[in-house]
Amino acid sequence: MPADAEKSRGRRTLDTGRLAAFSDGVFAIAATLLVLDLAVHPPGSPLEQVLHAWPGYLGYLVSFLTIGGTWLFHTSMTDRLTRADPNFLSLNLLFLLVVAFLPFPTRLVTEALGKDEGETVAATVYGLTLLAIRVLAATMDAYARSEHLYASREHGQDEREKRRSLPLVVIGYVIAILVGLVLPKVAVALYFGIAVYLVVPFREVARLVFRRS
Amino acid sequence: MPADAEKSRGRRTLDTGRLAAFSDGVFAIAATLLVLDLAVHPPGSPLEQVLHAWPGYLGYLVSFLTIGGTWLFHTSMTDRLTRADPNFLSLNLLFLLVVAFLPFPTRLVTEALGKDEGETVAATVYGLTLLAIRVLAATMDAYARSEHLYASREHGQDEREKRRSLPLVVIGYVIAILVGLVLPKVAVALYFGIAVYLVVPFREVARLVFRRS
Amino acid sequence: MPADAEKSRGRRTLDTGRLAAFSDGVFAIAATLLVLDLAVHPPGSPLEQVLHAWPGYLGYLVSFLTIGGTWLFHTSMTDRLTRADPNFLSLNLLFLLVVAFLPFPTRLVTEALGKDEGETVAATVYGLTLLAIRVLAATMDAYARSEHLYASREHGQDEREKRRSLPLVVIGYVIAILVGLVLPKVAVALYFGIAVYLVVPFREVARLVFRRS
Amino acid sequence: MPADAEKSRGRRTLDTGRLAAFSDGVFAIAATLLVLDLAVHPPGSPLEQVLHAWPGYLGYLVSFLTIGGTWLFHTSMTDRLTRADPNFLSLNLLFLLVVAFLPFPTRLVTEALGKDEGETVAATVYGLTLLAIRVLAATMDAYARSEHLYASREHGQDEREKRRSLPLVVIGYVIAILVGLVLPKVAVALYFGIAVYLVVPFREVARLVFRRS
Repeated sequence: MPADAEKSRGRRTLDTGRLAAFSDGVFAIAATLLVLDLAVHPPGSPLEQVLHAWPGYLGYLVSFLTIGGTWLFHTSMTDRLTRADPNFLSLNLLFLLVVAFLPFPTRLVTEALGKDEGETVAATVYGLTLLAIRVLAATMDAYARSEHLYASREHGQDEREKRRSLPLVVIGYVIAILVGLVLPKVAVALYFGIAVYLVVPFREVARLVFRRS
Repeated sequence: MPADAEKSRGRRTLDTGRLAAFSDGVFAIAATLLVLDLAVHPPGSPLEQVLHAWPGYLGYLVSFLTIGGTWLFHTSMTDRLTRADPNFLSLNLLFLLVVAFLPFPTRLVTEALGKDEGETVAATVYGLTLLAIRVLAATMDAYARSEHLYASREHGQDEREKRRSLPLVVIGYVIAILVGLVLPKVAVALYFGIAVYLVVPFREVARLVFRRS
Repeated sequence: MPADAEKSRGRRTLDTGRLAAFSDGVFAIAATLLVLDLAVHPPGSPLEQVLHAWPGYLGYLVSFLTIGGTWLFHTSMTDRLTRADPNFLSLNLLFLLVVAFLPFPTRLVTEALGKDEGETVAATVYGLTLLAIRVLAATMDAYARSEHLYASREHGQDEREKRRSLPLVVIGYVIAILVGLVLPKVAVALYFGIAVYLVVPFREVARLVFRRS
Repeated sequence: MPADAEKSRGRRTLDTGRLAAFSDGVFAIAATLLVLDLAVHPPGSPLEQVLHAWPGYLGYLVSFLTIGGTWLFHTSMTDRLTRADPNFLSLNLLFLLVVAFLPFPTRLVTEALGKDEGETVAATVYGLTLLAIRVLAATMDAYARSEHLYASREHGQDEREKRRSLPLVVIGYVIAILVGLVLPKVAVALYFGIAVYLVVPFREVARLVFRRS
């Protein structure tokens, strides 16, 4: 259904500028609030205290990179949107609700790793949150395609690959959650790996390296 | 009074871009700060601690969705603004003051539900804050209409319905506040219901479901 | 010196879009962070605890309105800027540094009023911060005028009045600070009064009331 | 390789608007969150408590100015970008990750100076973070130049100078870190000096002063 037909039927279609601005705000704040949970505690020498806070650094790294990678996906989505309908806006709010929630399970994992206790529960809650973010992102993308909200059906190679990699990431999270029921520390390592995968454009890096050599 | 006449009389009318940007910032931060009040506490096993923190999750959910629904209304308002006059800007600041205040009564409700104590006071303060947000939003909308700040008097069906539903939401909050004087937990459930009503575009979802089936 | 001459001499003049975006971010965050310092404490019934937290509400109100009024002034300034030179950008950073500092003296005043102790010191630090914000805003405005950064020298009646009222506000703060050395509670009331003066467009409200009556 | 050739090979190049918006958000939040770590503690009279909190003010000042100076550099970079490729976006995320981390070492330094203990470790962690921000900024700039992401190779005098001063700043940080291993308080003073250097446009100020005299 073309945009004109929509308008003539009185349905609201929103300019995507404020959708992007509000979403960018939530992404930026959720990512930056993570630093508030970093802290050093006695006992130990100053250097030991800083080193013993490693679970905090790890949690910061994984969650910041995951939010960053999610922002990349969200940006590539809204860049191609010509308009947003009420359903898409609501989906986006639900999606942001889970993104903004991420600092809480991050704190759970960080504390559990620090105390060597409750790691299984914390890693599972963390993994389920990461999975929910990804599933909601995939839902938004599928909805935008089925409702023809995107500018054009022709996408560059990069877009198609990103979409194909989405189920892969979902499967990765499911496996990591299951692994975490037995080996929570390994699950956190897997979440870190997926976050790196989301952010680093390996093909681009490879292209760069080969061209230079 | 047309915009030209305004200008010739030396009254300032502001481009709405920064109004939207500043408001989006406050909305995004108020919504994202809510996560800082989530915490687990002993006693109990790790899983029990996470589950016992349910009042926090509920408060996060209701307040985030309410802020999200309010953002939707604010966006639909500023999207149609052609200009903002000093009165509108001041009303908007007062409105944002109450929106940014919401994390405080959210914390009150969360703690009261967790301790099973002081629920009536907390639910009432929470409800009054939600009511104030809605009344101020309605005032801004009424002012913008009476001063012809909107782009056009013709609105789509969706806009008209949203405006008609506004008194309904105000009545809903008043009833919930009164109920909360006796049954505070029921009031919180009602606030949750209203938040869902504000965010979910039921007509759109229905349209989607019927079309598919 | 016209913009062309600037460019030909290799001086950087920045588009004002990101200046506004970054400043809006700091304004919005500083205003919204204020809510984190609101808290209720025993002893007392739940209702008493909520009522006894009044210094927090007062501090929130005064600081939020002051930041809002400062944002209004900043917006009216950057709206007329055609470009920003390095000096203006640095002044703006210094200005934002003080705006972002405001939550700290707000907390000092709130705690002092709550404990009935140290009010003089707290009210003075608070007043000096408010004064610094205003003096830096006036400096930026004077610099922009002397360097011809504004779009045009012709301003509406409203702009001229706002500029004329600026020395008045500075004098108001100085008097309030001096009063606060003896009567700190009165000083806080004066800061509240000035904040209301900064935000409420009295002339506009009067115009509205008279037209209606 | 021109932008057309890029597009035809299916590589994604992003509009720089959201890159700037997200980055501005992180800069603004990281700078504004610094205020949360300011606090006064007994013992002492109210005035003494406020004065004894000086390490907090110093840390706030240095970190806010450093973030501000970094924002200035980032702005001058993105202003000249015509597009951003995936590598640049990933570099930017990594860069923001370190910028958003800065409040943590700021707190370390502040606490160490306050307790006169652990200053060497804190000053070193702080210096390494500042150095990492600068090195990543230089890497982004070098990448943008080598991949022809900038609008034009012709830059004003100001740009060329800023780029030439970058290695100087890196060397400054390295020296300060080494000094800090023996004299941590001197290192903090050096970090303050570099922050002032990053923010104050000395040449512009000099031009202004000489013209007036």
